[in-house]
Amino acid sequence: MIQSVDRAIRVLTALQGTRRMSLSELAARLELAPSTAHGIVRSLVEHGMVVQERGSSRYQLGPAVLRLGNVYLDTLELRSKAIPWAEDLARRTGLAVRTGVLLIDDVVIIHHEPRPDGSRQMPEVGIVIPVHASALGKAMLAFMPEDEKRVLTSGELRSMTGETISSPENLRDQLDQVRASGIAAERDEAVIGESSLASPVFDSYSEAVGAIGVVLPSGGELDGQISDLVRETARAVSRELGAPSWPPRRPGQ
Amino acid sequence: MIQSVDRAIRVLTALQGTRRMSLSELAARLELAPSTAHGIVRSLVEHGMVVQERGSSRYQLGPAVLRLGNVYLDTLELRSKAIPWAEDLARRTGLAVRTGVLLIDDVVIIHHEPRPDGSRQMPEVGIVIPVHASALGKAMLAFMPEDEKRVLTSGELRSMTGETISSPENLRDQLDQVRASGIAAERDEAVIGESSLASPVFDSYSEAVGAIGVVLPSGGELDGQISDLVRETARAVSRELGAPSWPPRRPGQ
Repeated sequence: MIQSVDRAIRVLTALQGTRRMSLSELAARLELAPSTAHGIVRSLVEHGMVVQERGSSRYQLGPAVLRLGNVYLDTLELRSKAIPWAEDLARRTGLAVRTGVLLIDDVVIIHHEPRPDGSRQMPEVGIVIPVHASALGKAMLAFMPEDEKRVLTSGELRSMTGETISSPENLRDQLDQVRASGIAAERDEAVIGESSLASPVFDSYSEAVGAIGVVLPSGGELDGQISDLVRETARAVSRELGAPSWPPRRPGQ
Repeated sequence: MIQSVDRAIRVLTALQGTRRMSLSELAARLELAPSTAHGIVRSLVEHGMVVQERGSSRYQLGPAVLRLGNVYLDTLELRSKAIPWAEDLARRTGLAVRTGVLLIDDVVIIHHEPRPDGSRQMPEVGIVIPVHASALGKAMLAFMPEDEKRVLTSGELRSMTGETISSPENLRDQLDQVRASGIAAERDEAVIGESSLASPVFDSYSEAVGAIGVVLPSGGELDGQISDLVRETARAVSRELGAPSWPPRRPGQ
């Protein structure tokens, strides 16, 4: 690890959380001398990763990060393979479809197919949901042993709503069920009134590289037919990525 | 400038161009020792800014850049103010509407309102167009004296199509016209068959902070009524950002 690169990314992460910060706020947050923080911020400004708000001493993220994000989406094979299947799943279920990948302890939405009812819906690409509070996250985590271990041993899980599974033991039980069924569910765990179902997507190395699933109002019954369609979609995308089986066969099985 | 921060951003920029690169390719591109490049890449991987392609020695951009890009969009006051006006302009003209900001020598699209004809259109948020080949870019550049000077003195301008203005003298003449009329045009200069019209958006400091405009097929006449609507839209967004006048009064005027 190179210390100043780490610090530069921590500056970006701080601005991601707080949006607009002065140099002294950034220095305090990162526990750096103001002159050190200034050198890092100047380098980021030089490349358009950060911009200074006009007429203020505050900094915010700059347009270069948007360009990088767009190239990331274009590069992602999972996304290009998932899109037609996501459209199909949305049409067949009448529900919004999300595809996500893991970013440390969060799921990042890389594709969002809106509910096909013509209503206005917030675009969701780029938003994050805590991995333990999301069906996409649980679907992936159940097939990522190292990440599962990290999340389960990190202590109390952050509560998003009164329904979030915040005990590692309960989460472990849920992940066992996901391994058995190939499908993860959550009800009101990230957002009240919203539930979701998701299945993991595997690549040609049988590694979980993402998950795909539907979002539905919490009022209804979690219907077995929808689960079947979600699983079928995840299996189809996995096959397109070269996965030899779905879910993967584990040693000893 | 902190050298290793600068190098880290150059790694991201290299991956933005070439998409997937091995460590030795990255080291060669950045003229660094492989061990130096490795340290930088490891720090970027640690934070999810870069990921290693499974089963390969190549690296690509990671999901953390997508999250940053999404927060950038959410933070941008220009974008939130422009969206309703962009929707209105699209409805009144029947054309796609783009809003962009300057990123060094490019325009980055920060909002894209598709042509309201129900057809499938590529999303454009995050794409870049060379500033000199784009109506959005020329609209901004005409009111950004320092950036104008840099672009006009950087030598031959990169040609995108046979129609791109590649002579600094011709670009300077065009920018004079933009200053006089408040509207910039390009025909086939970035993409053959596509033309655009755009006007600059100013903030409360009378600084050009972006531009908004329409995209139209090159076959048609660049119609005066559309120009009026584009100018009116840019003026309305500028007023929402607190601009005291549009276009701004310059000292001595």
